[in-house]
Amino acid sequence: MTQRLSADDRRRQLIGIGLQKLVERPIHELSLDEVATEAGISRGLLFHYFPTKKDFYVAVLEAAARRLLKQTAPDPEAAPAAQLHQSLDAFVAFLERRREPYLALMRGTAGGADYVIQVHEDTRAAFTGRVHDALGPESETPRVRLLVRGWFSLVEDTALEWARDRPLPREELIELLMGSLTALLSTADPDLAGRLEAEEA
Amino acid sequence: MTQRLSADDRRRQLIGIGLQKLVERPIHELSLDEVATEAGISRGLLFHYFPTKKDFYVAVLEAAARRLLKQTAPDPEAAPAAQLHQSLDAFVAFLERRREPYLALMRGTAGGADYVIQVHEDTRAAFTGRVHDALGPESETPRVRLLVRGWFSLVEDTALEWARDRPLPREELIELLMGSLTALLSTADPDLAGRLEAEEA
Repeated sequence: MTQRLSADDRRRQLIGIGLQKLVERPIHELSLDEVATEAGISRGLLFHYFPTKKDFYVAVLEAAARRLLKQTAPDPEAAPAAQLHQSLDAFVAFLERRREPYLALMRGTAGGADYVIQVHEDTRAAFTGRVHDALGPESETPRVRLLVRGWFSLVEDTALEWARDRPLPREELIELLMGSLTALLSTADPDLAGRLEAEEA
Repeated sequence: MTQRLSADDRRRQLIGIGLQKLVERPIHELSLDEVATEAGISRGLLFHYFPTKKDFYVAVLEAAARRLLKQTAPDPEAAPAAQLHQSLDAFVAFLERRREPYLALMRGTAGGADYVIQVHEDTRAAFTGRVHDALGPESETPRVRLLVRGWFSLVEDTALEWARDRPLPREELIELLMGSLTALLSTADPDLAGRLEAEEA
């Protein structure tokens, strides 16, 4: 039954199976035996492609992070405020679907494993980078950087909490989160906040 | 060398030693042998007071959370905005001193252990409860609750990130975080934000 695949295709296949399983359980509960069985290969062959369990986990988590960034990528032709709105909307949708695995990522479970924490840090850096891109180089000050990072934590936490029982309509949540960014920016640097608002209007 | 202590005193002593060690390392790296040695008792006697390692860890974490809440308790005579400012100031000071163990608490390390996550949840609930107390019962709406909770995540993340290299003066950070709460409230409910501002002025 084993298909003949190139090494790259085999790696992609195994990571793809890992990604499917990641929807149901946190990374450190992924069974490599199950992944190998599903791919129709032996456990030994899996270890040929990923020498350790951790190598496989890292590859799957990084693929999940890339997928998240791709799914939340804004239309580069849109105005900055519209780009942020699109990204945020897609991010909330993602957190809604993937609440448990995302919580596991944030908590760096599997014994607080450093690689899990690193993937979360990279994801945060990519998102906050988008916000700074939208705001322009004037946003690269310590005050604004701290608050943009803080806003990302607020978004994660608020969206994950909201996804538990959805106490308000989805669109209202998005507006609240967008409004939060503008409000926070106005605390850190009124000029920047004004820029976002002017563009949104 | 073993002192004769009452059961309660002995428990307190052991928890106190655990608290000291928690400054240096996350809870799941606490060595019970070390704790027993320092108390001048046998490992077996320690397990008489705390039947499992987890029982001891939970007792230490809960004591740490109580200590945090006590250290950040505001003067009940002060105006609500002043109370929040005091609490926040003390909380940032705590995070500055206890960056690593607090990160471990947030991440629920030790395999994402549920009891660690629970202590963190309880801590968050106590803090956000203080904010709602200061704001009054009108603040108990889904929108405001989500944002107050989100603000707490922002405070944790911003203060922990700030504590790495202190890119701005401490007092400026506190002002930024207080201003963030007012700004966020103005997004969720302008009346509530106005109340805090009026009191602070």
